[in-house]
Amino acid sequence: MKKIILPFLFLITIGMTRAQSDLKVNQERLSNSIQQLATYGKNQAGGSDRVAYSKHDIAARAYVKELMLQAGLDVSVDYAGNLIGKKAGKKPDLKPIAFGSHLDEVPNGGDYDGPVGSLSAIEVVQTLFENQVNTDHPLEVILFTNEEGGVVGSRALVGQLSTEALQVKSSSGLTQYEGIKAVGGHPDRIMELKRNKGDLAAFLELHIEQGGNLDREGIDIGVVEGIVAIEWYEFTFKGFANHAGTTPMNMRKDPMLPAARLVLAVNEIVNSYDGAQVATVGKIEAFPGAGNVIPGEVKLNVEIRDLSSEKIHQVYQAIEEKAQLLAKESGTEVSVHHIEVASKPALANPEIQKVIESSAKELGLSSMHLPSGAGHDAQEMARIAPIGMIFIPSKDGISHSPQEYSSPEDIANGANVLLKTILALDKQLQ
Amino acid sequence: MKKIILPFLFLITIGMTRAQSDLKVNQERLSNSIQQLATYGKNQAGGSDRVAYSKHDIAARAYVKELMLQAGLDVSVDYAGNLIGKKAGKKPDLKPIAFGSHLDEVPNGGDYDGPVGSLSAIEVVQTLFENQVNTDHPLEVILFTNEEGGVVGSRALVGQLSTEALQVKSSSGLTQYEGIKAVGGHPDRIMELKRNKGDLAAFLELHIEQGGNLDREGIDIGVVEGIVAIEWYEFTFKGFANHAGTTPMNMRKDPMLPAARLVLAVNEIVNSYDGAQVATVGKIEAFPGAGNVIPGEVKLNVEIRDLSSEKIHQVYQAIEEKAQLLAKESGTEVSVHHIEVASKPALANPEIQKVIESSAKELGLSSMHLPSGAGHDAQEMARIAPIGMIFIPSKDGISHSPQEYSSPEDIANGANVLLKTILALDKQLQ
Repeated sequence: MKKIILPFLFLITIGMTRAQSDLKVNQERLSNSIQQLATYGKNQAGGSDRVAYSKHDIAARAYVKELMLQAGLDVSVDYAGNLIGKKAGKKPDLKPIAFGSHLDEVPNGGDYDGPVGSLSAIEVVQTLFENQVNTDHPLEVILFTNEEGGVVGSRALVGQLSTEALQVKSSSGLTQYEGIKAVGGHPDRIMELKRNKGDLAAFLELHIEQGGNLDREGIDIGVVEGIVAIEWYEFTFKGFANHAGTTPMNMRKDPMLPAARLVLAVNEIVNSYDGAQVATVGKIEAFPGAGNVIPGEVKLNVEIRDLSSEKIHQVYQAIEEKAQLLAKESGTEVSVHHIEVASKPALANPEIQKVIESSAKELGLSSMHLPSGAGHDAQEMARIAPIGMIFIPSKDGISHSPQEYSSPEDIANGANVLLKTILALDKQLQ
Repeated sequence: MKKIILPFLFLITIGMTRAQSDLKVNQERLSNSIQQLATYGKNQAGGSDRVAYSKHDIAARAYVKELMLQAGLDVSVDYAGNLIGKKAGKKPDLKPIAFGSHLDEVPNGGDYDGPVGSLSAIEVVQTLFENQVNTDHPLEVILFTNEEGGVVGSRALVGQLSTEALQVKSSSGLTQYEGIKAVGGHPDRIMELKRNKGDLAAFLELHIEQGGNLDREGIDIGVVEGIVAIEWYEFTFKGFANHAGTTPMNMRKDPMLPAARLVLAVNEIVNSYDGAQVATVGKIEAFPGAGNVIPGEVKLNVEIRDLSSEKIHQVYQAIEEKAQLLAKESGTEVSVHHIEVASKPALANPEIQKVIESSAKELGLSSMHLPSGAGHDAQEMARIAPIGMIFIPSKDGISHSPQEYSSPEDIANGANVLLKTILALDKQLQ
């Protein structure tokens, strides 16, 4: 990733007028718009059924488009169905500072994952508009299509959405192709959409923290260090399938035993390193998988996530060595299949992280640096632009659930940090 | 089970003529008939595709019926499709001594599981016929329908086959109802078939040992103590499903960990008791079962087998206590669901065991007592008659596989023990 050189950092505060540095979003208006958006697709269980391309998604987009127009944005829908709002800058030669998130939810989801970043982005522009603040850079609000169904809009924007991916069925029942059409995109022309490295000055995303770190520690703002890399390894232990009644205990080559030991070892090993790395066995299966047959084979999936691919590799190697040892001790064999998931971390730009941190500080908000264990549109945008992500607390770290909750104060804090960061970057990135 | 009182044990040898006590089966003829039967349904991989009700099964039954007729048996097919061969006794008031096994195999099975006991039964009668030996008791060879698909023929014979069970699809593709019809039975009249307690003097079954005990120890004959009881327990650990990327290691309630510990504990606990009991975790599943989700729930199946229901209960209680402890330590919850499988052991009659043992001894064969970990038709027959089972070695304990093998000598040894046991019981059970 390209580093942004900041020789004129001292100019930031000087370059801002008092009016600009005092600017605050309207917490009540922002809270109202989040509550209003939540009504689109609200189900009887209190969850949100606003999956991408559904009638609720389409109605919500129409509502949000109105908000964008009110904020003085020039609104369009791109070929991928992304809802784009543009605001001209005083220096049209500068590349746009872009920011946004998504409006869609997982099935029976919550009201904050996506909407917080989307509506805060609009609120930021509305605040600038009302206060007649014009930035040097053009600004661009991007509300991405179908984030929950595989970051479809952001992948399209960076040229990573294949023709095959368009044929994949979405939660709405429509294929991506049909869905993009339904929200006003032109899936046949999607390849023309691709933005290139350098087309944007920066991309920023405000989002609820889907872990419980901020909520637990009572911290206002998370300065995201990056979106972690994910590696999947499928371990297969092979023993000898046999009759569970007639095979004495001491004559068995039961792969269930080393597999169980590996589950425990994965946990011990990942905890033995300093840092925020995580490892999960989310899937385990015995074959043939009958109660009356000693399994011949047990497969288990080990997922490791960290901001550092090197750390992931270290953890994996320790797990793999242990697996070999366990196989040897139990007279079984083990093999590993590496499944490509998202092998590269998407690091947040260090200078943008500093700006987010200082923006929080100026607002009197506490902050901490932390990785994002979940994927976001910003991860795709990192392919073409320096990115920054701002997290706000989510109660008990719950997300993708009707129980998802962030307070109006926390959301406004995040929106104010976003506003301050945009204004600071506007001066800084010249 | 009713005990047979044997006050006249000393009469056995006295009652037999020299000719009778020297009688031996024809090893070559027996071996040939086993090889001949194996040709019905032999597949290209060397396995047997003679599943019950298939064209191969039907052709094999016709071949075996011929052998039965040649042995002087009065052959019929009962309502359940069991192939029955009757030989009158000198004392028609006595109840028949029955013996037999089955002709069908599991899909891609072997050539010995079933055929050894079935063709030895016929060979025994053929030997008596050739030597003009007539027993006091009527003799009855029973070759049961679809043993591998749920001991269908023997269940019918003891009145344990429900109308619903007749609608279950078999490996042949036909329902049990259709299959029984296809082999000449009358499924609509199956309830008329039921034999009652006391209708048979005894039931004997010769079978390959599906464990490797005899083969490993180099012992000729297994005197079966009984067919073990089987209990299934499904343990469910409940934790909290969460995002595998955003949930720090120390914030997890991952039920995979106590489940893995329980797998190891099951093994340790069952091994900590003296005896031949076995316990198996053949099945484990995580929910939702995705690589990127910390499971909310893990289910695992624990099967325990032993001749003593009390021992099974002891082992279960130790496992259940451990599960509670593991749940407590990991902040998860555990529940157990008891699945009824075959809760009662079918014990072999102790006096018949003694006769089998002494028959082996008289033939100069080594023997050992052992339980049968697998189910057999004899298990059902134990509901209505004193039973005995004779095991012979199966190479490496392999069964239900094309690799299944027992030598012609071992098979003839088993048939000779069966012959001697029948003759001894014929004198003894008067």
